[in-house]
Amino acid sequence: MAGSSFGNLFRITTWGESHGKGIGVVVDGCPAGLPLSEADIQSYLDRRKPGQSRFTTQRKEADSVEILSGIFEGKTTGTPIAMTVLNTDQRSHDYSEIASCYRPGHADYPFDQKYGFRDYRGGGRSSARETIGRVAGGAIAAKILNELGITLLSYVCAVGPVSIDRARFDADAIGRNALNMPDEKAAAEAEAYLNECLAANNSSGGVVECVVNGLPAGLGDPVFEKLDANLAKAIFSIGAVKGFEIGDGFAAARATGLTNNDAFGRSADGSIEKKTNHSGGTLGGMSDGAPLVLRAAFKPTPSISAAQQTVSRTGEEIEIRIKGRHDPVIVPRAVVVVEAMTAITVLDALLSNMTAKLDGIAGFYRR
Amino acid sequence: MAGSSFGNLFRITTWGESHGKGIGVVVDGCPAGLPLSEADIQSYLDRRKPGQSRFTTQRKEADSVEILSGIFEGKTTGTPIAMTVLNTDQRSHDYSEIASCYRPGHADYPFDQKYGFRDYRGGGRSSARETIGRVAGGAIAAKILNELGITLLSYVCAVGPVSIDRARFDADAIGRNALNMPDEKAAAEAEAYLNECLAANNSSGGVVECVVNGLPAGLGDPVFEKLDANLAKAIFSIGAVKGFEIGDGFAAARATGLTNNDAFGRSADGSIEKKTNHSGGTLGGMSDGAPLVLRAAFKPTPSISAAQQTVSRTGEEIEIRIKGRHDPVIVPRAVVVVEAMTAITVLDALLSNMTAKLDGIAGFYRR
Amino acid sequence: MAGSSFGNLFRITTWGESHGKGIGVVVDGCPAGLPLSEADIQSYLDRRKPGQSRFTTQRKEADSVEILSGIFEGKTTGTPIAMTVLNTDQRSHDYSEIASCYRPGHADYPFDQKYGFRDYRGGGRSSARETIGRVAGGAIAAKILNELGITLLSYVCAVGPVSIDRARFDADAIGRNALNMPDEKAAAEAEAYLNECLAANNSSGGVVECVVNGLPAGLGDPVFEKLDANLAKAIFSIGAVKGFEIGDGFAAARATGLTNNDAFGRSADGSIEKKTNHSGGTLGGMSDGAPLVLRAAFKPTPSISAAQQTVSRTGEEIEIRIKGRHDPVIVPRAVVVVEAMTAITVLDALLSNMTAKLDGIAGFYRR
Amino acid sequence: MAGSSFGNLFRITTWGESHGKGIGVVVDGCPAGLPLSEADIQSYLDRRKPGQSRFTTQRKEADSVEILSGIFEGKTTGTPIAMTVLNTDQRSHDYSEIASCYRPGHADYPFDQKYGFRDYRGGGRSSARETIGRVAGGAIAAKILNELGITLLSYVCAVGPVSIDRARFDADAIGRNALNMPDEKAAAEAEAYLNECLAANNSSGGVVECVVNGLPAGLGDPVFEKLDANLAKAIFSIGAVKGFEIGDGFAAARATGLTNNDAFGRSADGSIEKKTNHSGGTLGGMSDGAPLVLRAAFKPTPSISAAQQTVSRTGEEIEIRIKGRHDPVIVPRAVVVVEAMTAITVLDALLSNMTAKLDGIAGFYRR
Repeated sequence: MAGSSFGNLFRITTWGESHGKGIGVVVDGCPAGLPLSEADIQSYLDRRKPGQSRFTTQRKEADSVEILSGIFEGKTTGTPIAMTVLNTDQRSHDYSEIASCYRPGHADYPFDQKYGFRDYRGGGRSSARETIGRVAGGAIAAKILNELGITLLSYVCAVGPVSIDRARFDADAIGRNALNMPDEKAAAEAEAYLNECLAANNSSGGVVECVVNGLPAGLGDPVFEKLDANLAKAIFSIGAVKGFEIGDGFAAARATGLTNNDAFGRSADGSIEKKTNHSGGTLGGMSDGAPLVLRAAFKPTPSISAAQQTVSRTGEEIEIRIKGRHDPVIVPRAVVVVEAMTAITVLDALLSNMTAKLDGIAGFYRR
Repeated sequence: MAGSSFGNLFRITTWGESHGKGIGVVVDGCPAGLPLSEADIQSYLDRRKPGQSRFTTQRKEADSVEILSGIFEGKTTGTPIAMTVLNTDQRSHDYSEIASCYRPGHADYPFDQKYGFRDYRGGGRSSARETIGRVAGGAIAAKILNELGITLLSYVCAVGPVSIDRARFDADAIGRNALNMPDEKAAAEAEAYLNECLAANNSSGGVVECVVNGLPAGLGDPVFEKLDANLAKAIFSIGAVKGFEIGDGFAAARATGLTNNDAFGRSADGSIEKKTNHSGGTLGGMSDGAPLVLRAAFKPTPSISAAQQTVSRTGEEIEIRIKGRHDPVIVPRAVVVVEAMTAITVLDALLSNMTAKLDGIAGFYRR
Repeated sequence: MAGSSFGNLFRITTWGESHGKGIGVVVDGCPAGLPLSEADIQSYLDRRKPGQSRFTTQRKEADSVEILSGIFEGKTTGTPIAMTVLNTDQRSHDYSEIASCYRPGHADYPFDQKYGFRDYRGGGRSSARETIGRVAGGAIAAKILNELGITLLSYVCAVGPVSIDRARFDADAIGRNALNMPDEKAAAEAEAYLNECLAANNSSGGVVECVVNGLPAGLGDPVFEKLDANLAKAIFSIGAVKGFEIGDGFAAARATGLTNNDAFGRSADGSIEKKTNHSGGTLGGMSDGAPLVLRAAFKPTPSISAAQQTVSRTGEEIEIRIKGRHDPVIVPRAVVVVEAMTAITVLDALLSNMTAKLDGIAGFYRR
Repeated sequence: MAGSSFGNLFRITTWGESHGKGIGVVVDGCPAGLPLSEADIQSYLDRRKPGQSRFTTQRKEADSVEILSGIFEGKTTGTPIAMTVLNTDQRSHDYSEIASCYRPGHADYPFDQKYGFRDYRGGGRSSARETIGRVAGGAIAAKILNELGITLLSYVCAVGPVSIDRARFDADAIGRNALNMPDEKAAAEAEAYLNECLAANNSSGGVVECVVNGLPAGLGDPVFEKLDANLAKAIFSIGAVKGFEIGDGFAAARATGLTNNDAFGRSADGSIEKKTNHSGGTLGGMSDGAPLVLRAAFKPTPSISAAQQTVSRTGEEIEIRIKGRHDPVIVPRAVVVVEAMTAITVLDALLSNMTAKLDGIAGFYRR
């Protein structure tokens, strides 16, 4: 099945494996007239680059992007934008162990069951490097949203048992600590916890939060193409995600109608606004004018150097210890991936919303 | 935008409003040769019928399904199966209050923002009655899965603060209590809690869980069409869902790699199997041979008769009390909707998986 | 496979068989705010009604449409519009001959090969009655186009060997003759030819032409979603179509660049326009500001009462004579079907074109 | 709109402009286990290479393909196959004339109307070089079809007024003349005609035919996803195509039922077969077991060096003569493009057909 595309009017198609020649994306449906250069993309890619702290893998990945099409005289032309990042760290590793067994928590076993064999080098298509294409595409979506007054803010809100304290929320702190947390105290505690994990050859899970400000109300459709449904798919398509919430999420299941319903009122400028945001910015699948708030739960990095039980491809029970350089926690580098997928999904909803009303269509063509 | 279809090879398209002439669905892509009658559909629809206990609305909805196409001599023909449920409870209500204001927690406000106006009778397209089409389509998907040895089990695992005790899990109990919980003691506690909510003109949220047994490994695709990503969209497209998890879900974010990774081993019959199921049956977006386990968090019913602050369509701040017959909790009737959307998603993945290997294709056409 | 939907942003999904309970369509993605009643649809359906002359089947089909959803207070709401036409002429025919053999020129044989069996009553899903759903959907698309100043004109331009003379083109004549031809003399000759066919228990092919006026330039996309490519699919999805042309079509293959290229010039009002229209209104897959001109070749009605050689389902060679009431030529009733599919395709291109430029998007959301 | 993808289960996404950095394609949904190398692709690309005769442009385009992903140990892995052809002939041309005016017969004018500006270098996205991605993708589709016993044969059947004589049909001749015609005498006449065109600074149209042998009956769906409808879109999405036919095509519109219907009979081996093939291999939108026969009409090359009237971007009426190296006829190089698009469409239908019957699905999963 063709499963490497995401989006309807604005669509990304990604390709590439961890240790093949490169990773890339084709961005199709980008509106014409957006000023765009490789620097716009690179600044996003740099946010997922490894080697920035002891909590991310020490592999050196330059991850330098090249735009091959779709730009003319510094602007998008409306035709597909192809981007590639060549794989430079292709040292000849010894993959014989990965090749011959099924690593717990990895896609090795279902890959073999589905396709009969797999590119076992560094996880192949299921490597986190696959997200490079998403981030490159998301950088473009985010730039378009910015032009329309819509902004995204993303960060780590929990690492293992350590969560941020909302009372200490500090957006400026996100870029100042290795874990991208908006709470310096929580970041320090999380770092201590991760050091313990590393010492035990272990790893930790975590939670990423993304907030979108400036959305007009009414984006998304009332039934299957709900804005939150498409966000759920977008975020759950990122490797290692095991949970997704909008607004109060699972806490809403423990709440009552009186506490969970957001009252409507009038803002200072006379416009209609919600007085609280338990809904996280969507009602009935459509944006409700409040900030969009979503969260993604990431499982612990499955690659750990502690001993684990598994089986070989031929079915023998064996013990393995996974070598190599692996992040002890996924979330710091996943922040920009969550933001990218959110930007793509929101932009697609914004584009398709233009056809909702006959008045809007008539106004567009009469200008 | 055309947003009322779900699925690729097996696809449902739903239509209808709460108080229009009826509700319906077109099921397209159903394979030929499945014995199918209205009774197969009706038994599913009856599971979402209101009026079965004091915890579901006392409206009388016969919800009697009629199949209009796609069946010949008792079997599906491979052509679209159109099904309708006429709306019989169309008493002339007084909708003037709903028409003129924005109910908190409802889709009224974004509907007006998106489309300029709305069918305000009973929630219109955003009514829970919209799920009739999903359940009718899901009944067919589930029947096909059953023919292939795949079964689904769905139930309520939490109502407000009351959760089931896994040690007391009793599948037979699900049908015996009004809340569809697999734990009689939890069901009794939940009923007591809901009585408190009712007394306070309030409502409660809850959690539905669905387990799929018998899935072959390898369903789903490694990138955007991950089985869990499509399930996330399927479940989040149900009204009132605010959270979704596979396997350990958000608990995985607090876990470590050592506890979260599922070891592989050999089963009694020599086949490969996982020794635990923290993953909930998917690895890298593909089914891993273990039971698929998913959970959906539903917010409290937004329609409550307690006083709430809101604004009128013209922007005046007002207080409303929502009249009428409303479920104090959504989850008991949502169980079958979650099961239906899961069945459709799993079947679609199963169909598209047939083309994964050249060997499989060649074998199919050489027979 | 789910193959009963057409269109992306504006999408129809049809269902129903010739002799089942009815025929219907779900129109999804219709913009909100369009005044719409059953009379708007019925006037289109009446154009394909049989029994209007001796050149169309004498079956009596009331074909009365009912709208079941998507309209509130006389206007479209933006949610799916379900429409049904119940089958009233369900006399108990003797289908044993059709059931047991493969009619030449019909879909019987591939149906059995694909699905294992078929609903053989009156052609089942492959009956011309399937087009009722298309025409009902096209009526809505055409009404929207009309609101935007875009109009469609469709007619028969050839029946068997008889073609219209362009010098005698008379749009008013279309509705005055039984064959819907814009040339009374050609219509008379064609009627004489069809009488010969009827006398010989034979049938004739023909050609339908459709012209769209008022299209803005730039609709359609430069590569796979060319306006002409989508029109080609739309028209070729109508049963019995064997050829499709835009503009000069196959004649362009015999022409030279000097004669086929359309010069650009300035119109009286100073705007840019083409001086000729060999291209038929598209250049590079996009509308070029000139009228869109397309033609569809329909094969002769395959149901003829003359003797034909064929085989039974069990493989015996037999001779059959097809009984019943059949049109001796398809094109007079196909005119409105071609127009409907054209309207749907053009509208979809018009909607998706709204996102082509960043300026256009920004202008839309800034209003 | 995202308009650069084609196909559902087997899908190509193309990118690139004539004079940008390169041209490429991502092939998604390719089944795993197909032996594939760059040589397989290159042999197809070489068939569209210019400079092979005086009737194709003398530009030197190496068009050397590189596979960047999706292959491991010489076989497809089931993940996307990215391929690029770098543009080597990027001499700094003088494009000021093309930039400032609208060439007759080209996409320049609608491009500006749609997107506000365009990459005017060599036609940009609308260049014939765009077809490189299609041919690379089609090479893979054709190889898969070959593995399943399905073969394609494509050739030029007409150049301007010169058509092949079916009585002289000689498949071996196709590769022996510069025009890829299966009739040496017609090829000689066509060459003489093209020499006249060249002498007059003029160009010619032509017709390409493609035949597919070995198709099982039942491919394609009965309504919108008819095999012929998807072929019509596939072929009409190729630049310069103005007409498309299956089987007898427009000639069927002039025929009668008695002559056009294909009788069924038994073949020597006892199987059911059609005795003639006026239908061109499809009945009711599904393959009927006979060879698939389709034809595409290409307009004359619009780039001619004779004087033409047009307007500048600012609306002044001017005269232009198009400089540069252009094919006097498109069809010899278009043969492989038609074949590629046909292969992709047929393969997609073959894959989706696997889910038509419950028996087929059950058989597949029970193995």
